[in-house]
Amino acid sequence: MRVTDPGPARQVALAVDIGGTKADAALVTADGTIVAGSASRRRTGPESTAASLATAVRSVAAEALAARRPEDELVGIGIGSAGPVDRASGTVSPLNMTAAAGFDPAAAVRDLVPGPLVRVALDGACIALAEHRWGGARGATTALALVVSTGVGGGFIVNGMPVSGRTGNAGHIGQLRVRARDADDPLAGTVESLASGPNTVAWARRHGWTGTTGEELAVSYAAGDAVARAAVGRSATAVGEAIAAAATLLDLEVAVVGGGFADVASDYIDQVRASVEEAAPLPFARAVRVTGSGLHGDGPLLGAAALVLGADSQR
Amino acid sequence: MRVTDPGPARQVALAVDIGGTKADAALVTADGTIVAGSASRRRTGPESTAASLATAVRSVAAEALAARRPEDELVGIGIGSAGPVDRASGTVSPLNMTAAAGFDPAAAVRDLVPGPLVRVALDGACIALAEHRWGGARGATTALALVVSTGVGGGFIVNGMPVSGRTGNAGHIGQLRVRARDADDPLAGTVESLASGPNTVAWARRHGWTGTTGEELAVSYAAGDAVARAAVGRSATAVGEAIAAAATLLDLEVAVVGGGFADVASDYIDQVRASVEEAAPLPFARAVRVTGSGLHGDGPLLGAAALVLGADSQR
Repeated sequence: MRVTDPGPARQVALAVDIGGTKADAALVTADGTIVAGSASRRRTGPESTAASLATAVRSVAAEALAARRPEDELVGIGIGSAGPVDRASGTVSPLNMTAAAGFDPAAAVRDLVPGPLVRVALDGACIALAEHRWGGARGATTALALVVSTGVGGGFIVNGMPVSGRTGNAGHIGQLRVRARDADDPLAGTVESLASGPNTVAWARRHGWTGTTGEELAVSYAAGDAVARAAVGRSATAVGEAIAAAATLLDLEVAVVGGGFADVASDYIDQVRASVEEAAPLPFARAVRVTGSGLHGDGPLLGAAALVLGADSQR
Repeated sequence: MRVTDPGPARQVALAVDIGGTKADAALVTADGTIVAGSASRRRTGPESTAASLATAVRSVAAEALAARRPEDELVGIGIGSAGPVDRASGTVSPLNMTAAAGFDPAAAVRDLVPGPLVRVALDGACIALAEHRWGGARGATTALALVVSTGVGGGFIVNGMPVSGRTGNAGHIGQLRVRARDADDPLAGTVESLASGPNTVAWARRHGWTGTTGEELAVSYAAGDAVARAAVGRSATAVGEAIAAAATLLDLEVAVVGGGFADVASDYIDQVRASVEEAAPLPFARAVRVTGSGLHGDGPLLGAAALVLGADSQR
């Protein structure tokens, strides 16, 4: 008896992204497509513990896996997480979820399905992988991908390869200091303290704006509200200064700016670019190409998938 | 008739280093040894033009080549230069020799000897190559080598490989801004403006110290002069802040600090290390190992040689 050849099985990765406000999971195919119906999300927050994160991650992973067809080959589980991470132990200690320090995301998912490769990396490194493979940094030899969202994070491509560094934490551009420090606050003057969505909203509120969310700030900005404009400008300026610093150090071809808060203003990327040009002292650094992400917010999941999908996953 | 086999010829590189105060050349063997009697030097300075640099470079190169034995195989000419450089055209435009902008160092040496490979790179990239191959960054996967001298420069090793970036200018850590900028001076607040030998001497003089050289500043420092101590501390602090920034971005294993001005105080490296620990907001970055160069000032020449000697030269 002969059976019909089903053809080569579709390879899929289970991608998980652990952030300060949500945990996401989805199945991703080898061409960088999120499998329809596979995306799943749970809320996280400053109160999250290692135990609650484990529950959230198992839940989103199980829901994403439920979209797997019998003929799909699960090649691995890729997990991106807010940092810092510790590559040696595989644990993560997200800055914005201090009660979850030491969380082991691979352990949380490993028994959902037997066998596959599980890899954990900094979310910023995942984003750089995704932008390099499918987004705004395609073809670049030296690139920075960054995300302006609840936090500010990023990752580098150097000599055409992703950069993880000694402990897996390369790409922490949100903790680059671009203003004077403050003895009382080790994170004062860092890019994230100046540019993230929540910190920008908080700054606007301290200056008399009465909204509470980034979405409201976007509306006020579009309506020409002066405080909203100043707040957004402050964020874009800091991001531009960070790109200028990275471009000075690494002679970048391209910096890709993504993340939900980069959509707060239609000219956010333009403002970032203007700040780079003002802040970078040398012409080669000023010439870095600054562009928006082409990945519609899917960079973190696509990059987590890229950890275990195909050629880049071998690095 | 048989002739005696002379054995494998010794391979040597002609190494040239072009800096803001001097041009150096020497022959370097494949094991990173400067051939005795081959080192040659000419003075350069802010008044140097492309023509005068060409004369200086040809002179030092010819003198170094005169030390070549008949059986030495010249595998290539490696040239490191103060930046910025332009990899596409092979020209250099050192910041501290503005009248020499667009100088083509390879053209200056190419007709001295026929045939060999000629490579030009940023001096900082050469130093990183040398420290990675023979010095303080041996075995490191991710490293920064920097030099505190007439200027402040550096280079990176990432994923075990030297980094040149889009135009060959990766490593310009002297132009990283670590203090507020000044609309009138694009280089205000940069590491070099705060930490180089001449800028540190100038700062000390503005604060009442009456010497004129780095060597005199070293003597005053050793004698406990308060202004000299403050000036050196200001330099080491800025260098530490730069290392903290690079370590935050790239999760460095090691930062190697060399250059003549790093010898201004016996505890200069200790002060740099203390500054890194104070400035880096995240533990992984604070943990970067900070060490002095093991190359006794030969890093620029050894690294220029490494551009054309052996495995690393193929990258």
